[in-house]
Amino acid sequence: MEPDDIRRVLVVGAGTMGQQIALQCAIHGLDVTLHDVDERALAAARSALDATIARVRAKEPVLAEHLAAGAARLACTADAAEAAADSDLVSESVPEDPELKGRVFAELDRLCPGRTLFTTNTSSLVPSMFAAATGRPDRFAALHFHQPVWSATVVDVMPHPGTSEATMEVLVRFAQRIGQTPIRLAKESPGYVFNAMYNALNREAITLAANGVASVEEVDKAWTTVTKMPLGPFGMLDVVGLDTVFYITDYWAKVTGDPQLTTNAAWLKAFVDAGRLGMKSGRGFYDYSAAHGE
Amino acid sequence: MEPDDIRRVLVVGAGTMGQQIALQCAIHGLDVTLHDVDERALAAARSALDATIARVRAKEPVLAEHLAAGAARLACTADAAEAAADSDLVSESVPEDPELKGRVFAELDRLCPGRTLFTTNTSSLVPSMFAAATGRPDRFAALHFHQPVWSATVVDVMPHPGTSEATMEVLVRFAQRIGQTPIRLAKESPGYVFNAMYNALNREAITLAANGVASVEEVDKAWTTVTKMPLGPFGMLDVVGLDTVFYITDYWAKVTGDPQLTTNAAWLKAFVDAGRLGMKSGRGFYDYSAAHGE
Repeated sequence: MEPDDIRRVLVVGAGTMGQQIALQCAIHGLDVTLHDVDERALAAARSALDATIARVRAKEPVLAEHLAAGAARLACTADAAEAAADSDLVSESVPEDPELKGRVFAELDRLCPGRTLFTTNTSSLVPSMFAAATGRPDRFAALHFHQPVWSATVVDVMPHPGTSEATMEVLVRFAQRIGQTPIRLAKESPGYVFNAMYNALNREAITLAANGVASVEEVDKAWTTVTKMPLGPFGMLDVVGLDTVFYITDYWAKVTGDPQLTTNAAWLKAFVDAGRLGMKSGRGFYDYSAAHGE
Repeated sequence: MEPDDIRRVLVVGAGTMGQQIALQCAIHGLDVTLHDVDERALAAARSALDATIARVRAKEPVLAEHLAAGAARLACTADAAEAAADSDLVSESVPEDPELKGRVFAELDRLCPGRTLFTTNTSSLVPSMFAAATGRPDRFAALHFHQPVWSATVVDVMPHPGTSEATMEVLVRFAQRIGQTPIRLAKESPGYVFNAMYNALNREAITLAANGVASVEEVDKAWTTVTKMPLGPFGMLDVVGLDTVFYITDYWAKVTGDPQLTTNAAWLKAFVDAGRLGMKSGRGFYDYSAAHGE
């Protein structure tokens, strides 16, 4: 298959990443179906996309028009069979459970033609965990997007040991075709490329604050002043959501037993317990209530 | 002492950081003496500062004029006694050996008035290692600059357990007075704030390349595309110098016995052995020979 042969994309899982991946493909002229088994999740995805586009409009009206036109062309369905039968590429963003992903891919293998390329957007797993279930391991790899997809523009293209070279080539060029910057990995590695570095940075920032070495504000000031980035680690984590950050930190604290991670998880939990979840709740490490007009 | 009472600064150690700290104080109107026991080091410092200013001039002519005027006002001496007798603040940047730093501060304690504040610019040590030797632990703290001092503009102000609150207050306001952004630490922590995060990022970037997961170019592309920073981790390390990066990685590999750090050190050593030291040698992770007109 040539990258130009990819015309019909089936995005499975209508959470934030599925929505954005679908939209990114749609604004680049592809026929995109967003599929979720839950009708309510699909309705919520439509509303969430509208809200996202409204937020983009405030700062980048031209981009927002572009996104809105793409959203209008998105097909949404709870029944994947028809879309699957004619799909050239599948992008999977269902919850991070290897067994669930395996079941989803096994079902897709029955519904899709043999030519269809399968990709996973998993963040915390690696594709070899469910490659066999795809029924087509040579035509399967990770194609991992970053949020927001239209401005982060980085896609990790990561093989598992059974991915063919031809599949890697097609996926790298497909990523370019949908306006993304492909980062080609030579082999599986948890956390890919950007996230591996970003997570290390965040762990260190949280450690400094949780250990009482420096305040959230001082840590961010040090980072933004030297790098000239608009946000420091904590400002960026307020965008990600403190519940997510706590969940991941707590998970790894329990898996590794690392005492520093345990300290960090406890420190994050106090924010979550106080309802400080980041930008989405109006307050996280910083206070956004004024920005919400409250 | 009030921050405005600091008029005479003695900078001890004429390496890159000592030169830049001296210059930063001089361009903010202070009387600065740069001291090194080695006359040749002082002469080399003058030449190095001239070369630095010439490089700045190519891109920022106004800043370069400012720096040149400061450099013209710098006093340099191999005999610290006279400058010490009238100094309000000492900034130490001698080699990273706690015993050497202790000897230097003990000598300065004999030469300086009791009011003089003592600060260390150490990167890899912590001030408590030689606080007793200063003879004035309450008036001693770390005042740690970042390179290049005039554009990174971040200064860690870090106490050891015996530093007085008054000393911290004066140092924070002194840092502001010389055009820097003070980052106030509540207690000692190796690597301070920015460097702790930056080192974690670098370790992860080097790990990805040393393990053959992704190339230097792909790692940098992922970082710069998402963050919009002009350089990725490897581009920045080419500025730092690969010999320095190898030295630090190898040191920690030996201290901790961490197998990943041992792999990373071996990977870095191949570049150093090939004479690829970064920008300064014309080639490091990237090739700068065209920029050098070679």
